[in-house]
Order: sequence, then C-alpha cells, then structure tokens
Amino acid sequence: MEVTQLRCIKCGRTHEPTTDVLTCSDRACGGLLDVEYDYRSIARTVDRDALSASSDRTMWRYGVFLPLGPDSRRPGLQVGGTPLYRTRHLGRALGLDDLWVKDEGLNPTASLKDRASAVAVTRAFEGSFATVACASTGNAASSLAGYAASARLRCVIFVPSRAPEGKVAQLLIFGATVISVEGSYEQTFTLSEKAIEEHGWYNRNAAINPYLIEGKKTVAFELAEQLGWTVPDWVAVSVGDGCTIAGIYKGFRDLVQVGWLDRIPRLLGVQAEGCAPVVRALGTGRLEPADEDTLADSIAVGKPRNPDKAIHAVRASHGTMVTVSDDEIFEAMRLLGRYAGIFGEPAGVTGLAGVRRAFKGGLIASGERIISIMTGNGLKDIASGTRAVAPPARIPPEYEALEGVLRAAGIGRD
Amino acid sequence: MEVTQLRCIKCGRTHEPTTDVLTCSDRACGGLLDVEYDYRSIARTVDRDALSASSDRTMWRYGVFLPLGPDSRRPGLQVGGTPLYRTRHLGRALGLDDLWVKDEGLNPTASLKDRASAVAVTRAFEGSFATVACASTGNAASSLAGYAASARLRCVIFVPSRAPEGKVAQLLIFGATVISVEGSYEQTFTLSEKAIEEHGWYNRNAAINPYLIEGKKTVAFELAEQLGWTVPDWVAVSVGDGCTIAGIYKGFRDLVQVGWLDRIPRLLGVQAEGCAPVVRALGTGRLEPADEDTLADSIAVGKPRNPDKAIHAVRASHGTMVTVSDDEIFEAMRLLGRYAGIFGEPAGVTGLAGVRRAFKGGLIASGERIISIMTGNGLKDIASGTRAVAPPARIPPEYEALEGVLRAAGIGRD
Repeated sequence: MEVTQLRCIKCGRTHEPTTDVLTCSDRACGGLLDVEYDYRSIARTVDRDALSASSDRTMWRYGVFLPLGPDSRRPGLQVGGTPLYRTRHLGRALGLDDLWVKDEGLNPTASLKDRASAVAVTRAFEGSFATVACASTGNAASSLAGYAASARLRCVIFVPSRAPEGKVAQLLIFGATVISVEGSYEQTFTLSEKAIEEHGWYNRNAAINPYLIEGKKTVAFELAEQLGWTVPDWVAVSVGDGCTIAGIYKGFRDLVQVGWLDRIPRLLGVQAEGCAPVVRALGTGRLEPADEDTLADSIAVGKPRNPDKAIHAVRASHGTMVTVSDDEIFEAMRLLGRYAGIFGEPAGVTGLAGVRRAFKGGLIASGERIISIMTGNGLKDIASGTRAVAPPARIPPEYEALEGVLRAAGIGRD
Repeated sequence: MEVTQLRCIKCGRTHEPTTDVLTCSDRACGGLLDVEYDYRSIARTVDRDALSASSDRTMWRYGVFLPLGPDSRRPGLQVGGTPLYRTRHLGRALGLDDLWVKDEGLNPTASLKDRASAVAVTRAFEGSFATVACASTGNAASSLAGYAASARLRCVIFVPSRAPEGKVAQLLIFGATVISVEGSYEQTFTLSEKAIEEHGWYNRNAAINPYLIEGKKTVAFELAEQLGWTVPDWVAVSVGDGCTIAGIYKGFRDLVQVGWLDRIPRLLGVQAEGCAPVVRALGTGRLEPADEDTLADSIAVGKPRNPDKAIHAVRASHGTMVTVSDDEIFEAMRLLGRYAGIFGEPAGVTGLAGVRRAFKGGLIASGERIISIMTGNGLKDIASGTRAVAPPARIPPEYEALEGVLRAAGIGRD
C-alpha cells in the first residue's frame, strides 16, 4: 500500500492510516482528513501501458492508487468499468462538437456511489468490522447495503421516514437493518453518529470517512484511460455534499503527480437552483445552509459537509459552477434519453443540464471536449421520469384510430 | 458474414438471408426461421485464444457468430460484458457448492433483451429502415426504444393500456412514439403487426424475427468464455415466449459446432405456476393457452410464440423444466439480494427459484456447477420488490427507541 499518512485539511496535523482514524484526532479541530500517497513509489511500481494491459475491467485495476492492502479481501460485486460514450447526436442537438457521457448508472446498484462503498467495505474487512452503517435517503445507502450483502457484512441504515418507498425497498431486499426515523435528515444523521460510536461499527458517512473519495476518484482514472490518457477540456458533474467532485479532482491530480497527465481538466460543478449552497459559497466565501427545494433528491443537501474540498476542486482546476432549474433538469433528462438512449435520475443528469447552461452563458465553447458524468440510473426514480414526459397516445384497438395518431405525429411509410 | 441461409423450423424450406425475409415465405406454412452458418469457415477465421485476446468487452467481440455484416453500423449503446459471479454465500444458503449468477440487469436498459435489440437495430440499419417497431409491455420495448434512440432510428411501441407506468416512462424518456391500446395484449399485438406491414417498418416482435435469438445467444458465449471455455452442468433461466432459452441453446450449440466446447450444458427452463404453458407442453406434447396469473410480468405469456424452439432446447440439452410459485419467486428475490447484493425483478430471479425447486426435487445435485441467469433489474419493478420484504422499523428520533430495535434484531457492539 502506497499511503503515507492522513492529513487534516483544516489544521494540517498528520495521522497514521489506521482503520480507526477517520477525522482529525485533535478534538478542538475534528477536521476532515485527506489520504496522502508516495507518488514516486507508485510511478516506479506501474506505468500506463502496464495498467492498460490489465485484464481486470473493474476499478480494482487502479489498486496501486487506493488506500487498501493489495491482498485485502474485496466485496463480491464488481464495480467500475462503466461505458464512456461519445454522444454525437446529443452533442449536435446541443450545438457541441465533442460531448461525451459516462454512464455511472451501470454500476451494480446503479450509481457512482458504488465506487465509494466498495472501498468502505474493503476497509471494514481490513479492520475486522462485522457491521457497516450510514445515514442516507438514497444512493449511498442502497450502494452500501448491496456491497455489504455481497460481503456478508451486517449493514445498518438510518433513513428519515419520508424516504421514498422505492429506495427503501432496495435496502430491504439487500437485507439491511433499516431504521426509519420520524424526524428530519439532520436528526437521522445525528442518531446514526451516536449509534455508530456507541457500537463500534464501521462508519460510511461520506461526510466523515476520508476513504470514500479515494473510491470515487477512480471514475477520473477510467475517464483518462478511456480517452487514451488525454485530458478533456471540461468534466461536468452534479454537486450535493461535495465528495464526488472532490474525488474527480483527486483522481486527475493523482495522475498528474505520477506524470501520466500534464494537467487537470476544468471541473464544472452543477447544483439545482433550489439548493445551491456550494455555488453560493464559491461566490461569497461563506457557506450558509440552503433550502432543499429541488426534485433532484440525491443533491438536495442544504448543509453540505464537504464544501471545502468541492470548492478547492473547482478553483484548483480553474473550473466554475452553475445552477440549473428543475425544468432544465427535466429537459436534460429528455435530451439524454432521446439522443443517447440513457435514462438518468434527476441528479444524474444535472451535470448535463449544467453543460447546456454553461454553453449558453458563454462559459464553454462548442469545440471543447466535454465529459458529462451521469451519476445515477433513472430507474431509481420513475416518478420523476414520468413527470418529465407527456403521456402516451391512447386509442381503442382499431386501425383507423392508430392512423390518426400516426398522421398527427408525422409518421408514415418508411 | 458467415450466414448461409435461413431455414423454416416447420417445413424445412430455405431462404436467402435478406432483410425483408422474417418468416417462411410459403404462405400456407409461415413458420419461424432459424439462421444457419458455415461453421467450418468460422472455425478457420477465429479461434478461442484470438477471441479471448480481444479488447472489445461488448457482445460484438462474438461478431463472427452473428448475422451482421462486420462493418455494419452499430447502435451507440454498449451491450453485454455483464458480470458472472461465483455466489458462494448464496450457494451455501441453498446447499449448493458451485452456484453462479450472471447479472444481465447491468445491460444498458437493464435487461438481457438488450442483446436482441442491438442486433435488431443493426439489421434495421443494414436494410436502411428509418423506423423500428414492436408490441410489448416490458423489457423488449424499453430495450428497443433505448437502442433506437442511441441510433437515431424512429421507434413505435404498442402497449396495452394496462402497462405499468414505470415501464411506459422509460419508453417515453427514450423518445419512442408510444401507442397505448385500450384492449388485450393479443389485440395490441395484432394492431402492431398490421401497422408494421402497412408502413414497412422494421419488425422487432421476438415471436417473428429470427435474428433476435442470434443476439440472445451471446449470453451463452460470454458464460463459456468467463468459465474459461468449460461447460457447466446446468444453466437455469426463466421462460416466457421461449426465445431466451432457445438463444442460450443456440449459443452453446454454435460453440460445439466450431469445436470450442465438447457438449451443451443441461438447460433448466423455469415458468411461474400461474402461467406455465411451455412446461405443460413439454409434458403433454400439446401447447394450450394458459392464464397469466403471476406477478412475474415479463414471463406472463399465456400464448407463447416460440414454444417449439424452447422445448427443443430443453430436450436436446437433456435438460428439464420446473414451475415455481410466486412465493418462491419472492423468496428467490430476497435470497439473491441478501446473499449476493443483486436486486432482480420477479422474472429475473425465477431461474434461481427454479434451481432451488429442482435441487429440493432431486433433479440437480449439490456438487454440480449451476449458472442462474438473472434476466432483469429489480429497479424496473419496485412494487414487487416492496411486496417481497417486511417494512422497516420505524422509531422517533430518540436513542432509547433505537436501542430497543437493535436489541430485538440481535445487533450489538462489533
């Protein structure tokens, strides 16, 4: 393992990378930690060509960049190796010459969060934990539950009782112990933190655990490799807590550190207008809690817990952030479905909606190479999918009625 | 292309493999066709090692076995390359030593049907069709709509108006023209056939189009390759129309024909008790329409259109068929989720339910190597997922209430 230490991003104090250390040990600080590596040693161990020749198509092919023992037991489910599509038709519809979409909805539990959960479960093995736990209403929870099931770890999930039935079904099918809390998300989170501390479970709250970003960064490795180790102009992604965009930055930075890339692409962070505390903090320098007024539930995070890492990622990459309305998110959902055959959940297509907004606003140019990361499958939120489209034509089983509908739709003989 | 001809499975008449021929041209016969290949030429063109070295992870790596020009335009979405898991925990829970699950729910539109749709859309390109069409309530329709969108082909889908909202949402997101017919599935199908003939669209009704099985057979190629070109004892899969099991048989048979395998595994076809016309026909030799009384909607096919090919597949492989109750299907859904972290729709896990039934009935032995094909993602049918499990524990946001729940569940300190 090439990890040297964990460094507090607030006070700079360093820590040994033992399984029980998750946040800064200085009680007065308690800051988030960042995992540091010996990049010279990594660069000596492996080169791009050797890595490209690996027959392992999962994210474990990038194991040398991960904070895990090379021989540690891994969870059963595969993760990563998702397709990167050059979406020419979609690009043409938007006026963009070189638009690509990475479909993270094809991970085992249907979201990018699987990359983080796979690392969390491996760390739990390394620390001989029997139970993993987190508070979440959505993809992080279902992802952790799936990976824990495949690894036969016990899994305790805390959800606010307003959590959508569908996402709860996924948790229960994976055999998690689901605690439905009659209270706000904040109350649910607090209860989970207390229970985790009391019981000594492994903590997969993304806000706390520094290893999760290390899993998420593998999406950047895959992107770079799928593009033949070249750097795109922009990578666009939705922002909630801030961990995903921070992970993407970390991944590209790792590749620059070992000399495989010469720069980091500009990152476009996208939030929903109705819940954009990170975008505001980028402008004002001050994080203030926001309402959670958007249908993109996976990024409806009024009090993000990782804004510093997210803002650093945007600034250090010379990127920017934009907000989009829920209508623009629905429009992105339709465009992605219609022109690329990909069905994304609202937060999943928010990055694409941001690309459109940024192009219209002159922030990005039509000739630039743009990657939009689609973070979650639309099948997770059929209700929003239904809201995004007009209902179908309904007819009696008679040929004349059909002809009328087809004529109205302008559909004739081939 | 290594196709020699199409042969009618009813009267034996042969046909040229032109795009406009789908069924036997003898009007009095009208039988289904089977695609035939020059296996000697295939064996001369490629060997297993060359194929295994291919960097293409999609089903197109098996292109030499497909009825498509090697340079024909392909749809944008990737297809195939799904994971095959050795599910040790699940096997142990069932008393099986060597159980594997192939997760076809990780195809782009979340079902095995993508393999057929990818071939259909490529054939439509080859014939310069502008429109593809089919009648279906489920996975075939959403799959065709997705692939057509990625290829910018027009897509017309006929569904009975009782079709579940979720599956219709997927179709509409992909921009298909959806005709909701106020009538039975039979009336819907008949209307689609008339419209397809009148307008000259490309016909993706699996009952009719002989090329769809050619796409489905690639799941057998992948299985064999993932097992290091060895043959398992059993391959289990759910049966509706009969095309999927026929495709699996065809795939293994192709590999025997070119000398890459020495035998075909025994096929276990599984139907729901409430709709098992193929199982009955296997016993009596006579196909009689059945009720469609099962929650496994994707295999609720009372009048299957491909029973002959399905029964042939079971007999020629020295396999068998079993039925399972809806309760057994729900139990399989829970077991697969809990012990493997895979969420399947009811028809998706019916093969696994059948493995359990066959093992209990002494048809298969604990030491045999068994592959269960999971045909569709559980996120397509959240309602059934919810029915399969007990609701979560609901508590006020107080630590004492939580302790009570954890004690009752037997969960303590790690």
